[in-house]
Amino acid sequence: MTTSQSLSPKELRTLCRSGTFTGPTSGFARGHVQTNMMVLPREFAFDFLLFCQRNPKPCPLVEVLEPGQFEPRCAPGGDIRTDLPGYRIFENGELKQEVTDISAYWRNDLVTFLIGCSFSFESALINAGIQLRHVQRHVNVAMYRTNIPCLPAGRFQGNLVVSMRPIKSRDVARAVEISGRFPQVHGAPVHIGHPEAIGISDLSKPDFGDAVEVLDDELPVFWACGVTPQYVAELSRIPFCISHSPGKMLVTDFMNE
Amino acid sequence: MTTSQSLSPKELRTLCRSGTFTGPTSGFARGHVQTNMMVLPREFAFDFLLFCQRNPKPCPLVEVLEPGQFEPRCAPGGDIRTDLPGYRIFENGELKQEVTDISAYWRNDLVTFLIGCSFSFESALINAGIQLRHVQRHVNVAMYRTNIPCLPAGRFQGNLVVSMRPIKSRDVARAVEISGRFPQVHGAPVHIGHPEAIGISDLSKPDFGDAVEVLDDELPVFWACGVTPQYVAELSRIPFCISHSPGKMLVTDFMNE
Repeated sequence: MTTSQSLSPKELRTLCRSGTFTGPTSGFARGHVQTNMMVLPREFAFDFLLFCQRNPKPCPLVEVLEPGQFEPRCAPGGDIRTDLPGYRIFENGELKQEVTDISAYWRNDLVTFLIGCSFSFESALINAGIQLRHVQRHVNVAMYRTNIPCLPAGRFQGNLVVSMRPIKSRDVARAVEISGRFPQVHGAPVHIGHPEAIGISDLSKPDFGDAVEVLDDELPVFWACGVTPQYVAELSRIPFCISHSPGKMLVTDFMNE
Repeated sequence: MTTSQSLSPKELRTLCRSGTFTGPTSGFARGHVQTNMMVLPREFAFDFLLFCQRNPKPCPLVEVLEPGQFEPRCAPGGDIRTDLPGYRIFENGELKQEVTDISAYWRNDLVTFLIGCSFSFESALINAGIQLRHVQRHVNVAMYRTNIPCLPAGRFQGNLVVSMRPIKSRDVARAVEISGRFPQVHGAPVHIGHPEAIGISDLSKPDFGDAVEVLDDELPVFWACGVTPQYVAELSRIPFCISHSPGKMLVTDFMNE
């Protein structure tokens, strides 16, 4: 594990490309920005870009590639068609397949959106001594649909998805300050303390990811989540799109700080 | 002048709409955000939005409207087709007409981009006691093409256009700090002190606006300019686009601070 964590982003991407690495990327190539990915036809790209521009908290854009391009600036020499550990293929809003290479699906009209993910501020929280239960447990963070509407754009609309992390009451203010320093990756929390106020009736039943308990001396803290644009793209039932598989991110050469 | 300055944004927009007000908007409805405007067909809107996203310093987006829409969120009840004092119509990159109403040119496929302008940080500089010569002289700010390339996006590419303000040496650091607090309107300067280093050979011959002298105890300070996206749109020679006339901005209901 220590050896894997010390892999460079390029080494990790090369292992993905050869099919050797197909797992979640959390904890790998520490200190480097990892991104969510959405790929859609150019026909829908303006509306989707506008959706991201109007909803920067859940959709902090790291990079948008030209139609047909697959080598990002944030990962020189990389190829988004092969360098993620896993992908999901959607047709008309339905998951059709999970694959480890999307070369066979590539088209010249596909536009790739790379969107910041919470791994960046999570490592800053951990470095500040704030424990994160899902990291300690090696499970996926708990995510919930809320009743908070995003600003719509063209055919893309839907409610905000949030991730929840239980934080000790004494650490909540610091967690806000630290994550607020990362506006390019969701920034400060959108809600603290009352899940029902944002339409979440049962914390033990997340809509995505894995449940963790909230202890008596903790508060549930909710951050805008990069699953939002993916969820909204599914809701829109566009004929075709591709996303990364949950937790299987693009590892970039960019540094978190 | 005092009376005009105390007009509300809505009152000023109404005077534009009736054709009563056709002058520059600088100094009017103080404290409110004014914006540059670019209107282009949907066909080019993704590339242009991507250009703005990649070049946030010259192109800080305040709002992008859906295709065909003309009432902005930043000016409720407003109509971008009539509520600016003047417009320029371009065909294939050439200026064809200046008009005070674009209703006759409106099409359902037109997308409106509202882009932050330097008036916002200028009023903060003036409030901090930093004199601005072009404001004192009632002339347009001096603007120059540079040799600094913008990041291209699709068919949009070109060099950065900057505005120049002579600032007393003792005030330069403060001017940087104050304008840096306005990242949504160009932010901190892109260059200080050596025009030739960014490809400007003669400060007395601006490419746009009016020249002002730089005194011995002053430095020329250069900020990314909202004319850049307009200049880049002209260079691209797209079949049709509309911009505001220089200095004749959309006055919004948003506050600068």
